[in-house]
Amino acid sequence: MRILDKINTPADVAKLNIDELKQLATEIRKELIEVTSQNGGHLAPNLGVVELTLALYHVFPEEENRVVWDVGHQAYVHKILTGRKESIKTLRTYGGVSGFPKITESPYDAFGTGHSSTSISAALGLAIARDLAGKKYQVTAVIGDGALTGGMAYEALNNAGHLQKKMLVILNDNNMSIDHNVGGLSDYLNRARSDPAYIKSKEDVEELLRKIPNVGGKMLKIADRLKDSLRYLLVPGTIFEEMGFKYLGPVNGHDLEDLIEILKNIKNINRPVLLHVLTKKGKGYKPAEANPEKFHGVSPFEIATGELKKQKKHPTYTDIFSRTLVRLGHEDEKILALTAAMGSGTGVNNFARAFPDRTFDVGIAEEHAVTMAAAMAIGGFKPVVAIYSTFLQRAYDQLVHDVALQQAPVVFALDRAGLVGDDGATHHGVFDLSYLRNIPNMTIMCPKDENELQHMLYSALMYNKPTAIRFPRGEGRGVELDENLKLLPLGESEMLKNDGEIALLAVGSMVQTAEECAEILARDGINCRIVNMRFVKPLDEKTVLNLAKECRLLVTLEENVLPGGFGSGVLELLAEQKVQAPVLNIGIDDQFVPHGKKELLFRDCKIDAPSIAERIKERLQ
Amino acid sequence: MRILDKINTPADVAKLNIDELKQLATEIRKELIEVTSQNGGHLAPNLGVVELTLALYHVFPEEENRVVWDVGHQAYVHKILTGRKESIKTLRTYGGVSGFPKITESPYDAFGTGHSSTSISAALGLAIARDLAGKKYQVTAVIGDGALTGGMAYEALNNAGHLQKKMLVILNDNNMSIDHNVGGLSDYLNRARSDPAYIKSKEDVEELLRKIPNVGGKMLKIADRLKDSLRYLLVPGTIFEEMGFKYLGPVNGHDLEDLIEILKNIKNINRPVLLHVLTKKGKGYKPAEANPEKFHGVSPFEIATGELKKQKKHPTYTDIFSRTLVRLGHEDEKILALTAAMGSGTGVNNFARAFPDRTFDVGIAEEHAVTMAAAMAIGGFKPVVAIYSTFLQRAYDQLVHDVALQQAPVVFALDRAGLVGDDGATHHGVFDLSYLRNIPNMTIMCPKDENELQHMLYSALMYNKPTAIRFPRGEGRGVELDENLKLLPLGESEMLKNDGEIALLAVGSMVQTAEECAEILARDGINCRIVNMRFVKPLDEKTVLNLAKECRLLVTLEENVLPGGFGSGVLELLAEQKVQAPVLNIGIDDQFVPHGKKELLFRDCKIDAPSIAERIKERLQ
Repeated sequence: MRILDKINTPADVAKLNIDELKQLATEIRKELIEVTSQNGGHLAPNLGVVELTLALYHVFPEEENRVVWDVGHQAYVHKILTGRKESIKTLRTYGGVSGFPKITESPYDAFGTGHSSTSISAALGLAIARDLAGKKYQVTAVIGDGALTGGMAYEALNNAGHLQKKMLVILNDNNMSIDHNVGGLSDYLNRARSDPAYIKSKEDVEELLRKIPNVGGKMLKIADRLKDSLRYLLVPGTIFEEMGFKYLGPVNGHDLEDLIEILKNIKNINRPVLLHVLTKKGKGYKPAEANPEKFHGVSPFEIATGELKKQKKHPTYTDIFSRTLVRLGHEDEKILALTAAMGSGTGVNNFARAFPDRTFDVGIAEEHAVTMAAAMAIGGFKPVVAIYSTFLQRAYDQLVHDVALQQAPVVFALDRAGLVGDDGATHHGVFDLSYLRNIPNMTIMCPKDENELQHMLYSALMYNKPTAIRFPRGEGRGVELDENLKLLPLGESEMLKNDGEIALLAVGSMVQTAEECAEILARDGINCRIVNMRFVKPLDEKTVLNLAKECRLLVTLEENVLPGGFGSGVLELLAEQKVQAPVLNIGIDDQFVPHGKKELLFRDCKIDAPSIAERIKERLQ
Repeated sequence: MRILDKINTPADVAKLNIDELKQLATEIRKELIEVTSQNGGHLAPNLGVVELTLALYHVFPEEENRVVWDVGHQAYVHKILTGRKESIKTLRTYGGVSGFPKITESPYDAFGTGHSSTSISAALGLAIARDLAGKKYQVTAVIGDGALTGGMAYEALNNAGHLQKKMLVILNDNNMSIDHNVGGLSDYLNRARSDPAYIKSKEDVEELLRKIPNVGGKMLKIADRLKDSLRYLLVPGTIFEEMGFKYLGPVNGHDLEDLIEILKNIKNINRPVLLHVLTKKGKGYKPAEANPEKFHGVSPFEIATGELKKQKKHPTYTDIFSRTLVRLGHEDEKILALTAAMGSGTGVNNFARAFPDRTFDVGIAEEHAVTMAAAMAIGGFKPVVAIYSTFLQRAYDQLVHDVALQQAPVVFALDRAGLVGDDGATHHGVFDLSYLRNIPNMTIMCPKDENELQHMLYSALMYNKPTAIRFPRGEGRGVELDENLKLLPLGESEMLKNDGEIALLAVGSMVQTAEECAEILARDGINCRIVNMRFVKPLDEKTVLNLAKECRLLVTLEENVLPGGFGSGVLELLAEQKVQAPVLNIGIDDQFVPHGKKELLFRDCKIDAPSIAERIKERLQ
């Protein structure tokens, strides 16, 4: 019988001795590999925190303790140890366990996460609430060195250092975010971790200190203070100490004894502590250790080889964006690429290989990325910010204040727009059409397929305006790619089918849905016109107004929330032009969408072709 | 003749000797005091940077150099020295010089600012553009110690330290943001600035170092390194050095000789430099030195006394919010207040005086504030985040991801919503209805007057949902305040006048406008119903649908941009309910609004009562 079979809560972890904990670590790794090989998921980050999570619950087993997992994709071990060792098999599936902590899923999930760098703010809020309530439990944030490049982590450190509440921040330092880390702080941690000069210097200094003559009295005290200062200088905690944290570490994050000992000591420190833990992403599974980027978030794979089970049929939108960006980079040396620690995910890494001096990975720092891009544009260049739709939410103010107000011609390539599937509510890119549309001077485009994406990227770089192109996660439609890139006229839609009593006005991914929907309706004798809108802003007003005159019903289709989205834009136009026409707005209702396969979510949201056809028929009755 | 009269560009500043520069500093201070005593404005920050700005342009007079002024309210001296010494008299007036740098106003305004902590990102972007273009000019960011608490400043430092481009960051350290600074970093700077133990320790250590015996050879080298290390440890630059900057300072920011000397040295350093300058906010004008908070941003005042010219007729919305919050704080000890370095502006300082342990000033750190508030709410408390509408834009993602998704019952008191007047485009709070409305689970309220504001604050704290109350800048309507606070039924509007062929659906400040508008129309025999909507979300659907049935025209009125705003919400509802009714949406067009008196801006935007009456009449024709 496995030890894991006896583990229901952290209290069971607390009872184990070191050998049993080591055995449990092995069992958990096996479980992690099995689950993610079936369901996909964030394998490498979880393999890296097995011992850390075990040690944490060994020392702090009480349910009332609060652990906030930054980003949260490394919380599978936590889930296994907190009552979900069975349900973990449903990880990331529709109705199953989420890939991120969720307060509605378990009392042990202290705070929901998904986006980076929120954990210290959350832990501080919980620590304040604890103290005000007169309670004593432990509050811990576990944050990666990548997430520490996010500005709000620093805002929180700054505030926590000042308030001096008892709390623990564990810096899970694997020297990677999702890609390799960048930034001054990362350089600093690297130095502290491995620079032999640092270590040498420490030894030398200790030798020197031994040689300082005993001068007695005051000088002795000074010498002591000096030794303290030097120790302090030569460990990597200076920055954290300066900000008001007690710094401990670095400690080997795979050594259970060391971890447990230091956590026991921390139990009694009544002020903010930063514990620096060194871990290895992918630890214990060779393919993941060898390629932690690939196994950061992985689709189902063969355990023996680490090979992905499913091969792509078509290139992804990301592939086509990436390829087109490199192609255009050769033609125009003013083009620059920016990513916020997502070089592989966004495809910017190909541009980086071709044009290292024109590529900027700023770390997990979306706010900085957007403002810096605005300055680059004002400085005469053509920056392309490649970013996931959900992460651009971080830089809404910078879009308004630095890009749009100054009309800085920055191009935003918004990947993973719409429903993303397995990652769920925190990652769906379903707000962008709304939050971009309310910003003056923005141009917003949505390609109907990957071929149009390449034309849109080319066009966006020609418009010389702040422009966003939003495209979905995953494979393209497999269409042929035009050899020559075309300039799409700004604000002009594409009429795909111009006869019928119903007008389907579709944006992006919903063009295909509209086509399928039209086929279904044709079987019932309902004939639809189909428009690929291309632009959510500026709207093709002429086309919309014409169709409003000529058709019985306008149907707007978008993979975005309904409030403030494309459909609202159409309604606003009709109201402004005093045109009264029946409009059916199809999109995502005003609620958060859970995780699961995209097809299931589309059906659930009633934005798949059969549901839409049904809704149109109802409307026509 | 004044020296100032001969100054047209920085090149003229470069020609002056020290005595002339000192004389010019005096003249500029006089000018600053005169202009702001007439027009209002950010006096104290500008008095603090007179010598700094003079030194900067003395050493870097070429037009191609780029200076980014963080926040930008301290750029009046810059404007005076860069061709605007005459037009500065029009400061902050409609059509006149903006209170912030604007790239469209002068070639010397390198990058527009207004919100905090953007300057290092912008300067880095400009430095990258400069290097890629093969140019050599100087790029400088001037950032206050307050702005340095903003996360994106840290993101940018981190990136700049890594990239090692030639650039200068001047830390304008006056130990204040707008209110007094907070945070670990601020504590650290304070220590570095003034702690006698620090200075003593430095002296002691130097004495000790002298006593280290000469051991020759290798040990000598170590001793040298040790001395370097200690010097490095004992100056306040450690954090910046660790992040990859060369740290210089602190230097007295009112000593022109020292400033010029150090800037000349910096000219030749080809990597990122952080120059730490100590300045005194309000320097040279006694009332401002004595009360730098009041003179941070001040309305017109008497120069001799520093007394404000205009006395308030009525309490402001802020006053009533502040008073009600304190009152409720006495009744419910779960209520907490948060501010992002705006204790006076938001009125949170009164709560802080009554309940210091339940008040949290997090620094200029809106992202952190919002996520921490979410955690406090999840921890069982009732946090109220008091924030300006325009600054909550910084935390859009945290609203979505940490508050709304988790349904954390945080109350947002959004001050300065709508057009704010003199501060202009960067500060108008005209996007909030749109960016909040597209977030699921949000409740959005707008009080028609200050009496309703107190009921709304009380109600919001009862709903136990994420709730925003947005209210305007400035004085209330002078209405009587109810003694007892009322629970407003969630999602119910208030019918103010229920007969007439036209329905005016108004939110917040526009209720008064609707009343005035109805009076104007009544003179032409047009009878209007008037609804105080109270809730933008959830909408009072029943009332809207009834009115759509009964009236010839629905007019929506909001002090917000039209795309995605309240009016769109009404259109969405009508479309969803298959109701075709003529709707006229009144709001701010899809463009940025400049600075100037609110009345002028309302007229310009055609959202004042006479303009709206005119538009309704046109529509009825």
